[in-house]
Amino acid sequence: MPENKMSRDDLAERISVAPFHKWLGVELTGYDEDGIEVTVPWREEFVVNVQVGYTHGGILATLIDMAADYAIAAKLGRPVPTIDMRVDYHRPAMQGKLICKAQALKLGSQFSTGEAQVYDENGKLLASGRGVYLTSPPK
Amino acid sequence: MPENKMSRDDLAERISVAPFHKWLGVELTGYDEDGIEVTVPWREEFVVNVQVGYTHGGILATLIDMAADYAIAAKLGRPVPTIDMRVDYHRPAMQGKLICKAQALKLGSQFSTGEAQVYDENGKLLASGRGVYLTSPPK
Amino acid sequence: MPENKMSRDDLAERISVAPFHKWLGVELTGYDEDGIEVTVPWREEFVVNVQVGYTHGGILATLIDMAADYAIAAKLGRPVPTIDMRVDYHRPAMQGKLICKAQALKLGSQFSTGEAQVYDENGKLLASGRGVYLTSPPK
Amino acid sequence: MPENKMSRDDLAERISVAPFHKWLGVELTGYDEDGIEVTVPWREEFVVNVQVGYTHGGILATLIDMAADYAIAAKLGRPVPTIDMRVDYHRPAMQGKLICKAQALKLGSQFSTGEAQVYDENGKLLASGRGVYLTSPPK
Repeated sequence: MPENKMSRDDLAERISVAPFHKWLGVELTGYDEDGIEVTVPWREEFVVNVQVGYTHGGILATLIDMAADYAIAAKLGRPVPTIDMRVDYHRPAMQGKLICKAQALKLGSQFSTGEAQVYDENGKLLASGRGVYLTSPPK
Repeated sequence: MPENKMSRDDLAERISVAPFHKWLGVELTGYDEDGIEVTVPWREEFVVNVQVGYTHGGILATLIDMAADYAIAAKLGRPVPTIDMRVDYHRPAMQGKLICKAQALKLGSQFSTGEAQVYDENGKLLASGRGVYLTSPPK
Repeated sequence: MPENKMSRDDLAERISVAPFHKWLGVELTGYDEDGIEVTVPWREEFVVNVQVGYTHGGILATLIDMAADYAIAAKLGRPVPTIDMRVDYHRPAMQGKLICKAQALKLGSQFSTGEAQVYDENGKLLASGRGVYLTSPPK
Repeated sequence: MPENKMSRDDLAERISVAPFHKWLGVELTGYDEDGIEVTVPWREEFVVNVQVGYTHGGILATLIDMAADYAIAAKLGRPVPTIDMRVDYHRPAMQGKLICKAQALKLGSQFSTGEAQVYDENGKLLASGRGVYLTSPPK
């Protein structure tokens, strides 16, 4: 795997500028050659089921797509469009902050694969998944 | 495919009660024996890329998971937990409302598959995908 | 969706020339502007479970990847490499021939999505899925 | 992750008894608490493209589904039906034996997720993916 081409500060800045990330409150909380970590605080609007109070699967899917994308962006030096993504749901996500770790799995000249895992604040794995990104050189 | 067991009104009520759906502004705009349709108005917070202005893939993923879930809920008479889901991104989603259609593809005694398509207001296909849901009887 | 650029005869020839397709006994049994159909006769070597006698999921996955690929090849005039694929298993596939229908879902300048369904000889849906293919012009 | 409930010998026996595995020539070449490894020798019938000589994606998909299934079977003490699976293709698989490693990622009371990686004999990653398996107790 090549070395990161995007600095931690540059990555943090790019993540924070997106309006949806602002609403989510995403913060870059980890960055090294092996991958990145983002953290999202709790929001009451995340809930899908008011009786049990767990978070909407779409929020977890958003974290996985985003974090895997930025793990590849860190390596390439630019963010990349998602071709497709998928999420496995492992446990209900109850109230509390969400931590998402992501790694570039394979960088290719035309498309690349990244993977990501979402944990709760106790380190329980809530969801995991992958995104495939278009990484052919922009025209 | 069996007949719907959840009425249109009951489905609309269940969709609207979830806090994340309220934030998204989801409305049930179609319902028959072949599937359902939900519509989401534009929100500036949906944007991921401020230069070009397109919507975060996580919003489209949320619509696909939710609509496919409720297409199965309409058949079964109860909402169901997502096992996994995946999304193919076909075109950038620019400013404007999003329409998501969904159908139950296969109902099983233990798990079921639904699929969904997201369109822009001009009927262009933006994304499509599937969810697999746990449909074994609740204990 | 554009018109087919590969003729039925050319497609049948391309399918039959691949050694793995020869072993499977794949035959092109349907071809029009909406998609293609391939049929595979029974082979005892397909079985994974000798007690119950059902077919290995890898055989069904092979049919879905292949048929979705050739549905896109028919449109583009050339076969294309798979980026990724996924399969939902709906029912056990018991002894008997397998019929796989496939359609191009979205053609893109850089990647394209196809979908496919595997049926038994009584028309029961056994599995369905999608492939994403690299369709940027060859260099 | 719990300890394995199926012994190495029992697992090797179960793998080798399936007719499709016999045809593939699958051999259990690794087994410990972290996962399993299976190896498949080259067969000329694996080829999809006679000019370039690379292996059909369906063969790689078969290995991923099978190995992830048996990684879960090792933990549970019984093989399990696949709900769905997906494969990312990273590199063309040229002539030579294929080595597939697999791990249980999350065991659940109703469904479980496994992942797998296919390597060539030089250790290059050719494909990787996941399967989701029905693990509710048999009735």
